[in-house]
Amino acid sequence: MSIRAIPGGVTAAHGFRASAVRAGLRSGPGPDLALIVSERGPIPVAATFTLNRVRAAPVEVAMRSLRAARGYAAGVIANAGCANAATGIQGIEDARAVQALVADRLGVAARFVFTASTGLIGSRLEVDRIASVLPELRPARGRKADTEAARAIMTTDTRPKQAAVETDLGRGRTARIGGMAKGSGMIHPQMGTMLAFLTTDATCDPAVLRSVLRETVERTFNQVTVDGDPSTNDTVVLLASGAEDGPELSGAALTAFGAGLETACRALTEQIAADGEGARHRIDVSVAGARDDRDARRVARTVAGSNLVKTAVHGADPNWGRIAAAAGRSGARLDPGRLTIRLGPITVYDYAPITFDEGAASNALRGKVVEIGLDLGIGTGTGMAWGCDLSAEYVAINSEYRT
Amino acid sequence: MSIRAIPGGVTAAHGFRASAVRAGLRSGPGPDLALIVSERGPIPVAATFTLNRVRAAPVEVAMRSLRAARGYAAGVIANAGCANAATGIQGIEDARAVQALVADRLGVAARFVFTASTGLIGSRLEVDRIASVLPELRPARGRKADTEAARAIMTTDTRPKQAAVETDLGRGRTARIGGMAKGSGMIHPQMGTMLAFLTTDATCDPAVLRSVLRETVERTFNQVTVDGDPSTNDTVVLLASGAEDGPELSGAALTAFGAGLETACRALTEQIAADGEGARHRIDVSVAGARDDRDARRVARTVAGSNLVKTAVHGADPNWGRIAAAAGRSGARLDPGRLTIRLGPITVYDYAPITFDEGAASNALRGKVVEIGLDLGIGTGTGMAWGCDLSAEYVAINSEYRT
Repeated sequence: MSIRAIPGGVTAAHGFRASAVRAGLRSGPGPDLALIVSERGPIPVAATFTLNRVRAAPVEVAMRSLRAARGYAAGVIANAGCANAATGIQGIEDARAVQALVADRLGVAARFVFTASTGLIGSRLEVDRIASVLPELRPARGRKADTEAARAIMTTDTRPKQAAVETDLGRGRTARIGGMAKGSGMIHPQMGTMLAFLTTDATCDPAVLRSVLRETVERTFNQVTVDGDPSTNDTVVLLASGAEDGPELSGAALTAFGAGLETACRALTEQIAADGEGARHRIDVSVAGARDDRDARRVARTVAGSNLVKTAVHGADPNWGRIAAAAGRSGARLDPGRLTIRLGPITVYDYAPITFDEGAASNALRGKVVEIGLDLGIGTGTGMAWGCDLSAEYVAINSEYRT
Repeated sequence: MSIRAIPGGVTAAHGFRASAVRAGLRSGPGPDLALIVSERGPIPVAATFTLNRVRAAPVEVAMRSLRAARGYAAGVIANAGCANAATGIQGIEDARAVQALVADRLGVAARFVFTASTGLIGSRLEVDRIASVLPELRPARGRKADTEAARAIMTTDTRPKQAAVETDLGRGRTARIGGMAKGSGMIHPQMGTMLAFLTTDATCDPAVLRSVLRETVERTFNQVTVDGDPSTNDTVVLLASGAEDGPELSGAALTAFGAGLETACRALTEQIAADGEGARHRIDVSVAGARDDRDARRVARTVAGSNLVKTAVHGADPNWGRIAAAAGRSGARLDPGRLTIRLGPITVYDYAPITFDEGAASNALRGKVVEIGLDLGIGTGTGMAWGCDLSAEYVAINSEYRT
């Protein structure tokens, strides 16, 4: 099974074009409206959504459309600057209006257009602004189009987030998977996720696509946390063009595709964690020896999300007690008498407190990527989570968002 | 039913004495070892403990001793500066050693001494230092003794936390309830709690005492959050001396006692929230109209614990979208089309976004106590939670704890 990183984003997979434009929904320069289109009309699509009960209008509309279209879509329209969340019936109508405009443009029924928004909660989506710039969207292939689209969905992100891989499916077949994502704040997906758009040229039935996406999201996007606040707009969507022209994915080819998808999702997840609001360090938490993978992911996520662990990393303080306390409250089975904790290469707790080189352990917390390892010593479950440090800048960014 | 605040703390209830001394377990000046004793030898006691799987040694010892003593204790020994958590078998032995020394001093069996610690996780308890200052502890009644004891359990707290009430039990009986607590960081009790010591002179069977304490803790201490991190040492203990010399609490007298206990616990809870690390504002979240009280408490606690709500309060930004998003992810039943949100007296969301006076709403976030109200419009459940804003000072305090 061979997986290679390749340049580009959503159009790195064959059968897709992308475009972005400035509609003026967000203050500051740059594009804020992105369109991804299938070159073959409606194609299989799978998506996972936020479990937040306050679900944004574009999420409602996308969920209903996906059902009505039985898992097919011809394009994705996404905007930054306005989440169109907690906007009531009016919000649904606004999202439907944008959907209809894009459908007209693509020459498909409205249900084949997938809607997504990100930005401030509670403000109305300015449909007129979107309508007036839609003609300027000229979908194209290539890295320039990809990057513009990835820029258009940024909010407090400091850089666009993209990934693309090529994966061998066996018997001489290859598939490409491309993707873009936004992250930054209100990042703590709860069985849902943040905004991520993925494409592939693999040939795949919608039901199979859904199951492979769901599994992958559990291990990647659902394991990243910036501030413990899941959003109203979390969405991951994966479109499969079938442009590789092979038979439907199954067996070993499906397994190989799943591994490629996980590589792409993980690359985006790492970019989201590294670009968390105010973050100076990405924190990678690896857990082994748990009762099962679920328990391992739970421990990893709780440690990565602990304000006290995040501030300890920020201060390069090898305060392993906070890591042990976070693991202990995760709900996973755990016995401090069997636990090992590692900061980078330095073991700092081994069944009991031990003497370790504090300077070296502190240095392990100073890199751009900080690795925290735990072995629970109970079973064979493993899992990872990604987070970032908590800084005064996070407080500043979020104290001044609107004012 | 009449409940009055009275001066003092743990010895405001009859039948108790307290004392504190400096053992040198914590850096900085002031006492760090507190003793509360019953004037009548072993008396009924009830306690609730952390549910963190990494449970501190003094918690283990207190749990086992309470069981062995069938719900009776003659005194409480508590120290700051060292949590004696994640210290393995050695930690248990150290806690047992302190327990035995205090038991000798009081002339009771070791199981009648309740142990509690707070401070750094992972360091050994310095038993010798405690042994050498124990003779200096001279338990007394009165406000000076109370305040010294409350000071001795402080860590990053900026002030001691005490409360005392006198409550009518009916038929001319009155009971007093006194208490002290520590809070500040790692505050997010998970069915457990932080450190709080309560006394009463009511006459009460251990089983009844346990049930009234548990119910009260659910509504008070378990609803305060500073940083989402439940501790390894969370403990609330309530001792009942019976010095009021009435019959065992039951019926209306028990109800009246429960109300008094809730008043005392709530006063301590509010002090803990107000003195959260780096906090400038206490945040009181009231929820009405929930499916049931449990759902209401869940919403209140999630809103009070949201980093994004906390930073919005810090910046006096009336960003109600963050409150709606936090409520939506709490797990409680909720429909944004029936929701109302209030900042102080200003309604900012009423079934849908509304126009409101942003300046007045921002002002409602500038007081020492900020009130956030939600009505879910579904049922009759109510609940409260207490928190504080998230400031750059919180980050500074927790980035520099050890170094």
